[in-house]
Amino acid sequence: MKKIEHIGIAVNSLAASNLLFEKLLGTPPYTMEEVLSEGVKTSFFMNGPNKIELLEATTADSPIAKFLEKKGEGIHHIAFDVEDIVAEIARLKAEGFTVLNEIPKKGADNKLVAFLHPKGTNGVLVELCQEAPKAV
Amino acid sequence: MKKIEHIGIAVNSLAASNLLFEKLLGTPPYTMEEVLSEGVKTSFFMNGPNKIELLEATTADSPIAKFLEKKGEGIHHIAFDVEDIVAEIARLKAEGFTVLNEIPKKGADNKLVAFLHPKGTNGVLVELCQEAPKAV
Repeated sequence: MKKIEHIGIAVNSLAASNLLFEKLLGTPPYTMEEVLSEGVKTSFFMNGPNKIELLEATTADSPIAKFLEKKGEGIHHIAFDVEDIVAEIARLKAEGFTVLNEIPKKGADNKLVAFLHPKGTNGVLVELCQEAPKAV
Repeated sequence: MKKIEHIGIAVNSLAASNLLFEKLLGTPPYTMEEVLSEGVKTSFFMNGPNKIELLEATTADSPIAKFLEKKGEGIHHIAFDVEDIVAEIARLKAEGFTVLNEIPKKGADNKLVAFLHPKGTNGVLVELCQEAPKAV
């Protein structure tokens, strides 16, 4: 757990929220990306050593659509930057946390990611992420 | 907006959650503090350039007690480190954000703080914080 890599925020409209967060953070998003497997469109803003990710649902059954329906717009998850995601998954499992992805999966922004079940972390959806190795 | 200063997480029991987050983050809290004016007990964990703050309500009518009652445990706010909180409040007001504390107030961890109304920030409670000047 080297730092907060990013905070993920669920929004109804990426277009509208990109303008809002540009005003808040004083910088436009540096990348936008659709993650088909998750049913989301995302944008990322730099904030010093950290990032803010906005997430809009693209399908009715995506996790973000369900979150928005249940809780409305707001903070969805906190992602920590880790050096070695496989070792960190093993460490957290041994500590009793429920790891939802025992094998890291490909996430947005060129990351390998794994989530912890929020029931074991005081209701907080925790993502581990490691920069994906470049293809050789 | 220099970086994410901390993420605030509302918890039912600071004692139990301190142990949980020590396991998650691999480090114990570096400080614990009661903020009487807010009706909370807090603990802070370092995480690289960032911090995690846990908040437990100490009075039935504290904002954290109301949050826990309505939403349960989870992420409560995101705090950004700012260089000059007075200038940042003026900038954000001019951008159309609703600043809840036009005059910064004393927060936990030796900070001057001000909050933005979540209705103007996609449901996200945003805190601005600046290290309080040392008494001369």
